[in-house]
Amino acid sequence: MKKQIAVLPGDGIGKEVTKGAVDVLQAIGDRFGHQFEFAYGHIGGVAYEVTGSPLPDETVELCKQSDAVLLGAVGGPKYDTLPVHLRPERGLLKIRKELDLYANLRPTTFYASLADSSPLRKEIIQDVDMLMVRELTGGLYFGKPSERRTVDEKEAVVDTLFYKREEMLRVIELAFQLADKRGKKVTSVDKANVLESSRMWREVAEEVAKRYPEVKLEHMLVDNAAMQLIKNPKSFDVVVTENLFGDILSDEASVLTGSLGMLPSSSLSENGPYLYEPIHGSAPDIEGKNIANPLAAILSAAMMLRVSFGLEEEAAAVEKAVDEVLNAGLRTKDILSEGKKAVSTSEMVAEVKACI
Amino acid sequence: MKKQIAVLPGDGIGKEVTKGAVDVLQAIGDRFGHQFEFAYGHIGGVAYEVTGSPLPDETVELCKQSDAVLLGAVGGPKYDTLPVHLRPERGLLKIRKELDLYANLRPTTFYASLADSSPLRKEIIQDVDMLMVRELTGGLYFGKPSERRTVDEKEAVVDTLFYKREEMLRVIELAFQLADKRGKKVTSVDKANVLESSRMWREVAEEVAKRYPEVKLEHMLVDNAAMQLIKNPKSFDVVVTENLFGDILSDEASVLTGSLGMLPSSSLSENGPYLYEPIHGSAPDIEGKNIANPLAAILSAAMMLRVSFGLEEEAAAVEKAVDEVLNAGLRTKDILSEGKKAVSTSEMVAEVKACI
Ligand SMILES: CC(C)[C@H](C(=O)O)[C@@H](O)C(=O)O
Ligand SMILES: CC(C)[C@H](C(=O)O)[C@@H](O)C(=O)O
Repeated sequence: MKKQIAVLPGDGIGKEVTKGAVDVLQAIGDRFGHQFEFAYGHIGGVAYEVTGSPLPDETVELCKQSDAVLLGAVGGPKYDTLPVHLRPERGLLKIRKELDLYANLRPTTFYASLADSSPLRKEIIQDVDMLMVRELTGGLYFGKPSERRTVDEKEAVVDTLFYKREEMLRVIELAFQLADKRGKKVTSVDKANVLESSRMWREVAEEVAKRYPEVKLEHMLVDNAAMQLIKNPKSFDVVVTENLFGDILSDEASVLTGSLGMLPSSSLSENGPYLYEPIHGSAPDIEGKNIANPLAAILSAAMMLRVSFGLEEEAAAVEKAVDEVLNAGLRTKDILSEGKKAVSTSEMVAEVKACI
Repeated sequence: MKKQIAVLPGDGIGKEVTKGAVDVLQAIGDRFGHQFEFAYGHIGGVAYEVTGSPLPDETVELCKQSDAVLLGAVGGPKYDTLPVHLRPERGLLKIRKELDLYANLRPTTFYASLADSSPLRKEIIQDVDMLMVRELTGGLYFGKPSERRTVDEKEAVVDTLFYKREEMLRVIELAFQLADKRGKKVTSVDKANVLESSRMWREVAEEVAKRYPEVKLEHMLVDNAAMQLIKNPKSFDVVVTENLFGDILSDEASVLTGSLGMLPSSSLSENGPYLYEPIHGSAPDIEGKNIANPLAAILSAAMMLRVSFGLEEEAAAVEKAVDEVLNAGLRTKDILSEGKKAVSTSEMVAEVKACI
């Protein structure tokens, strides 16, 4: 198989972790006889520095011509003083829009070998297996107006939460499809007791549920969901919600198992290419120190193999390699615990490759 | 001292827990020689059933004429089919508007005696002492338009996040005042990388901070806050945020210590009366069973004594009584753990009274 992968390292540790993922993909290519071509593009703060824009047109073009996109991370305090439209995160928001990435998928996986890193008690977090599906193109993120105003001669401000029904439909439909292949339960999160958009969301969820008689639909208010994720994370299978609730809840979910540095994500569109990225941020404080955890980026590459290229065996080989290095007791600093062996980013990558 | 207290039991267990709080207030009145008069009003589902409105004008009038308001809880599944404007939670939203309750204060307190009930590891949650300050009158809760629309011949929906600058100012100012008397740190939570309203929020926070040179101001994005509350709850002192973020984060914070059934809250206005209520909901599944935990309502009454009436000694007497029954090993079902004695709602109330 021959595939072109757009690699957008971005800022901070993005460069180090995507390099690790690329190395592992190359090892997979060698072993299974695939040809992966890597084409690099700029995004985020570094893109602004080089091109004057956090997402130059060349990068968008590159992604559109590729079979999949691998992203590192964007952002850093040195860009905080830039005008809003030039900040690194604008690059991220823009690429979502440009590629019409409407669904962000984040599995929360429990690693028995990392149980000690979880802030939660073991009996609460053990065997959690949840998939968060976040709508990515609508809501407060892109709604207009978003502006300062003068109301009754006083300073005021307005942001707009806007959704088309069809935007809700496609992401909720996806959540049901995914649940049908997993635990057969969808938790749809909204704030229907306050928001009109949430009431429409609930209607759409009910409508989709009719087409999936084997999948159980549960509605949950966002404030309650924020509680249940901590009290009873095992009760979730697939969670689906709108953009900003998804931003908050998926970050909340990501720290439950204590393995944030291990968690991959994918963002899907209707016609591809899909985008894969680790959940963690750019961590500028540890940039260039060769201590970042490359496993989330490597597992994002595994997701790419499975979802974009249909290479199940290859994806499983990556995941198995990661399990093996963890079982061998190797740990980057973020997941280090007593009795385990500390390794650098590059050592971790080399060990994973050695298992492939 | 003579005071009139409006009591709004509301739905579900609201009646049982406010009764417990009233009993305790009476005991305090007897011991310290105060005269508390209790005037009852309807709110929520029961108000709708009796008067056709979730917040009848009589209740608003009653509250306005009283020195403080004690609320139980509102809501229940049997009201889910009512049109939105008649649902129980409308009563809650309306009383906030009518009394101009602009700040909801929720302490998250660690009870050593309840450490086993926390979903978090003891070393993470021990000695947490955080105060969440939530703006209560603006944001997506009351912004207009909030309606269905047809856009490009397609069904769509819009909600509006609206704030006046002065609404931000008064609640952030309050947060700094409170922090100045506590840990001298304010964490202001926003989504300034996406929302214009959050950028104004951040400016206002900076402006207020200048007047409190001894209080440290930290800005935190809401998604990060959702993570840090779990990973590092001890790092917070006073947290201040807008209405919907506050709804989500304060519920998240409320389950950290495992003592949701113990947590009081207060809602403040510029000129009073203030409203006090337990954080927990109406729990219709256990209504009338005499098993609800009355301590959150009782501790809300203690807050009332301190904040609305300036009765510090009396407030401390209630809190000490609660500590004593906990130390004696008495527990309602929600906080029961091995080796402790299960008691009913009314037994718990009687035991607290006996300690006063
Ligand atoms: C950087 C920011 C705009 C972005 C978001 O809020 O979507 C990030 O938090 C994320 O979740 O990918
Ligand atoms: C019932 C609901 C409208 C309310 C809110 O969202 O404010 C509740 O969740 C709360 O926090 O008091």
